[in-house]
Amino acid sequence: MEPNCPTSSNDYAADISSIRQAQVRIEPFAHRTPVLTSKTLDSIAGRKLYFKCECFQKGGAFKFRGACNAIYSLDDHHAAKGVVTHSSGNHAAALALAAKLRGIPAYIVIPKNAPKCKVENVKRYGGQVIWSEPSMQSREDTANKVLQDTGAVLIHPYNDGRIISGQGTISLEFLEQASDIDTLIVPISGGGMISGVALAAKAINPAIRILAAEPMGANDAFQSKSNGRITKLSEVNTIADGLRAFLGDLTWPIVRDLVDDVIVVDDKEIIQAMKLCYEILKIAVEPSGAIGLAAVLSDGFRKNPVYSECYHIGIVLSGGNVDLGVLWNSFDK
Amino acid sequence: MEPNCPTSSNDYAADISSIRQAQVRIEPFAHRTPVLTSKTLDSIAGRKLYFKCECFQKGGAFKFRGACNAIYSLDDHHAAKGVVTHSSGNHAAALALAAKLRGIPAYIVIPKNAPKCKVENVKRYGGQVIWSEPSMQSREDTANKVLQDTGAVLIHPYNDGRIISGQGTISLEFLEQASDIDTLIVPISGGGMISGVALAAKAINPAIRILAAEPMGANDAFQSKSNGRITKLSEVNTIADGLRAFLGDLTWPIVRDLVDDVIVVDDKEIIQAMKLCYEILKIAVEPSGAIGLAAVLSDGFRKNPVYSECYHIGIVLSGGNVDLGVLWNSFDK
Repeated sequence: MEPNCPTSSNDYAADISSIRQAQVRIEPFAHRTPVLTSKTLDSIAGRKLYFKCECFQKGGAFKFRGACNAIYSLDDHHAAKGVVTHSSGNHAAALALAAKLRGIPAYIVIPKNAPKCKVENVKRYGGQVIWSEPSMQSREDTANKVLQDTGAVLIHPYNDGRIISGQGTISLEFLEQASDIDTLIVPISGGGMISGVALAAKAINPAIRILAAEPMGANDAFQSKSNGRITKLSEVNTIADGLRAFLGDLTWPIVRDLVDDVIVVDDKEIIQAMKLCYEILKIAVEPSGAIGLAAVLSDGFRKNPVYSECYHIGIVLSGGNVDLGVLWNSFDK
Repeated sequence: MEPNCPTSSNDYAADISSIRQAQVRIEPFAHRTPVLTSKTLDSIAGRKLYFKCECFQKGGAFKFRGACNAIYSLDDHHAAKGVVTHSSGNHAAALALAAKLRGIPAYIVIPKNAPKCKVENVKRYGGQVIWSEPSMQSREDTANKVLQDTGAVLIHPYNDGRIISGQGTISLEFLEQASDIDTLIVPISGGGMISGVALAAKAINPAIRILAAEPMGANDAFQSKSNGRITKLSEVNTIADGLRAFLGDLTWPIVRDLVDDVIVVDDKEIIQAMKLCYEILKIAVEPSGAIGLAAVLSDGFRKNPVYSECYHIGIVLSGGNVDLGVLWNSFDK
């Protein structure tokens, strides 16, 4: 697919104004997540690190921000018929939870191979689970059938201005909580979170550096930036189950223009970062959530002179939905 | 040992004034730990719960507050010779860390059977580990030898006014962060934390209820309160390795007078609470740290009409130093 290429920021799917509106909209429902710091991790990294703990967000991940903004943006007529998505992960749980708060149905198409704790989250929040085969084709077909049967509104997990605006509220809080941040490191998958974070952060402080952290086995954003166009992969292979999506036509222009660089790390580095989150920060962070710390500790970042002036680094720990057994089994014993 | 029985609060080893002084003293070094809430846990408990996350304190536990206050209370002459303790656990790591900050030596006597992650914490913070046999006699003998050899100051883990005052700073923060708390639930072991918490909280709000949470297999505080005197046990048996100490002559009078009740829970309930902390709150909480949540969810608490008016409950999650493997292996699989 060729990207939609707007040349001015007015063409982006969101902006600082829509992000500030989202903040007002979700404020009664979302947690203002805490920022943690650790002298031990600072000394390992050789920089001052701030961790925005979205693992403590409702539903266990940042996704609630976008889902809540999208659902509360609907007028009553459309909302009444409910919402549907075919995300397998945190977006699904977040959408179910936000729908429950508004008192409307959420139809969640989930592939049969989804992680158990994520399916449980959807059920806990009252989402109606509809199983599909693992393939994207089956997921889309199943979702389309639900749309036809119910008249519900499809809420895409990232390629949607309302979602991007909701995720952008992370920056508004983070830069208030740690105003000396000069660099933000954000996981990248479909690009919804980093788009919102970049739009808000650069509106507040144009000099701030925005870096994406991406797994080696799903490095479509890195390749897209290199190629100057959305580049999809024929297969992905990473432990970070939340980072396997590709950029969309609404997120790509923002990633292209506002993301300064993509730091690519391998699964071993991600696992080591999860372990540090558990042992030093004392928090449960899923692989996709820990990748920002992995990026900061990677040779690709540490040894690159371009980053020698990143003194105060804000890292978004994006989610905490990891089965304990999976965490334990992923560690070298 | 017969307790020292002061009849007025002036005889306690600490008071609101020493606690406020401690707050000023430790403020440059200690974290103001965040308070988390969870609608899911509220609905399981049937009350509004606030979690004071001392697992995010420096060193991974509340103990840093007391250790830091004790070490910065020393004059330069005494401080220069260093400090010593024979705690095996979080106090040891906290003391090592606070000593490192002040630039003085910390000699830590550790029994050979101490949990690995706690020993690693001591080493990480530069403490000088001196091994002893597991028996209390060997620990004390070894510590005495260190005292004679070095002239260092012994910092007891709980039976010390400076320690009690430091731990009391938890209340000052907690009641500021969640001012509608009507009940505080605090783990009890030697009684240092609950003494400080109770002194500060009742000075701020005399109507506040202070409940201790104690493991069945180490219920000396429950028995002491029942018997009206310090009662020690001939053996202890609980997964909560931080809650195996007995009340001291400085903590007992405060526990006797200001702790409204002791809720006793078994190890199964503690493990279930750790699991909820991991799965719902997304944080690593050690068994001793999770016992407050276990108490709130126990039948002994829920079915007791005395507690039907505890609407807003503050729970101190006191520490997060748990080996991941231990956590995983303790869960029913």
